Amino acid sequence: MSIQTISGSAQEVRQQIRSNAWRGITSGVAPGHVQANLAILPKDLAFDFLLFCQRNPKPCPLLEVIEPGKVEPVLTSPGADIRTDASGYRIYENGEFTAEVDTIEDYWRDDLVSFLLGCSFSFETAMVDAGIPLRHQQTGNNVAMYITNITTTPAGIFSGPMVVSMRPVKRGQVVRAVQVTSRFPATHGAPIHIGSPLDIGINDISRPDFGDAVEIKDDEEPVFWACGVTPQAVALNCKPPLMITHAPGRMFITDQRDADYAVL
Amino acid sequence: MSIQTISGSAQEVRQQIRSNAWRGITSGVAPGHVQANLAILPKDLAFDFLLFCQRNPKPCPLLEVIEPGKVEPVLTSPGADIRTDASGYRIYENGEFTAEVDTIEDYWRDDLVSFLLGCSFSFETAMVDAGIPLRHQQTGNNVAMYITNITTTPAGIFSGPMVVSMRPVKRGQVVRAVQVTSRFPATHGAPIHIGSPLDIGINDISRPDFGDAVEIKDDEEPVFWACGVTPQAVALNCKPPLMITHAPGRMFITDQRDADYAVL
Repeated sequence: MSIQTISGSAQEVRQQIRSNAWRGITSGVAPGHVQANLAILPKDLAFDFLLFCQRNPKPCPLLEVIEPGKVEPVLTSPGADIRTDASGYRIYENGEFTAEVDTIEDYWRDDLVSFLLGCSFSFETAMVDAGIPLRHQQTGNNVAMYITNITTTPAGIFSGPMVVSMRPVKRGQVVRAVQVTSRFPATHGAPIHIGSPLDIGINDISRPDFGDAVEIKDDEEPVFWACGVTPQAVALNCKPPLMITHAPGRMFITDQRDADYAVL
Repeated sequence: MSIQTISGSAQEVRQQIRSNAWRGITSGVAPGHVQANLAILPKDLAFDFLLFCQRNPKPCPLLEVIEPGKVEPVLTSPGADIRTDASGYRIYENGEFTAEVDTIEDYWRDDLVSFLLGCSFSFETAMVDAGIPLRHQQTGNNVAMYITNITTTPAGIFSGPMVVSMRPVKRGQVVRAVQVTSRFPATHGAPIHIGSPLDIGINDISRPDFGDAVEIKDDEEPVFWACGVTPQAVALNCKPPLMITHAPGRMFITDQRDADYAVL
């Protein structure tokens, strides 16, 4: 995996990825374009998973669902191939992580349904544009993520706790942070919770369940957003025979612009 | 069917309906509560129909999907029974309208999936509250609805044109009409089109495809919203062996309040 970045339009970057010229971390790549979390599941689980996403739109904001066996995200990225054009993939078999791969052509089956879910990069751009700094970006870390005591609404075999991401925000900017992220419901939207971590079952804010810990200063509040790790965690709880996701930080870049998904 | 109205909370009204004490037109009943269009389909069509709704959220805003064979809308109306608590039902077999009935217990099957879709009553209330009068309400008519040349995004076997409703709005109030309805994406949300009917394939505004014609005055623009008739029309195009809907104007009243679904 390369750590160098790359410039170009969403289509140009996907072409570089498909030709194996570059497969790196996609944060900051093709700025202004919506990036997607991937979850790929067999068709016999697809109705339940689609229903789970419909019932839990904040952690599971669907950008597109590709029908069984089809590989082109016609609505968000015409011409792309979901098997080759994400920067990296992870294979889970019976709930166990078994491989991280560059393409999934060897794993493809005609009964697989691909779910593209909005990621937080869109609303993070909106926060930075509004003058709200993001400490994890400044320090070059991954965002801090926590398993909460907030239950998702189950659907069929899928259930489990909500995972949230946390960003410290200066008290004077908390209202503005709510406003600017509310404009992006397709990419997690408004916060789930502001302030006391204990209220949502986080006993030690200094020990995130995923990602990296981050300092919270005296003039800041921790602000929590629903996180796209939730649907992956919930799906893996059920130990599906096969589930394919993007690799952490190596997303699928769509042709859609952040502004296309802004409300009001 | 009674034309008299009825007062009471959503739960009280549903109890009156279930006991057959009252089964009338639900417009204006249990004010402030979200009313739902119903579409009930066999499970083997449910994934495609759920995906159709996900791809076309403006005409098909999902409030709740009840899992196969289950009859209680746990999320929006706990304690209710989808087989008895709508004011009236229509049965379609192989795409043909075959019966209008008070309850559907005789038609119920363990493989049926119930879809509750937002209806326009919520945003109409918001318009009236904002001082934008609705002519069809004033004249006691049904809203005017038209088949357009706007294509929906297909999913599986489901495809077809979008049906819209039209309300004349004074030019000075058009911006406000966009703003107040944008707050209710779960009940069709912002308009689809403002002005020239020809632009969206409506050749004769005086002849609606459904509902009643309405006068457009010189100082008014026709404003068009995506209509909940769309998913029913699209589903019936496919001639499913069995499809059950609510009867026109005789909706299912949920426990949810309009305000619960307002964004910003």
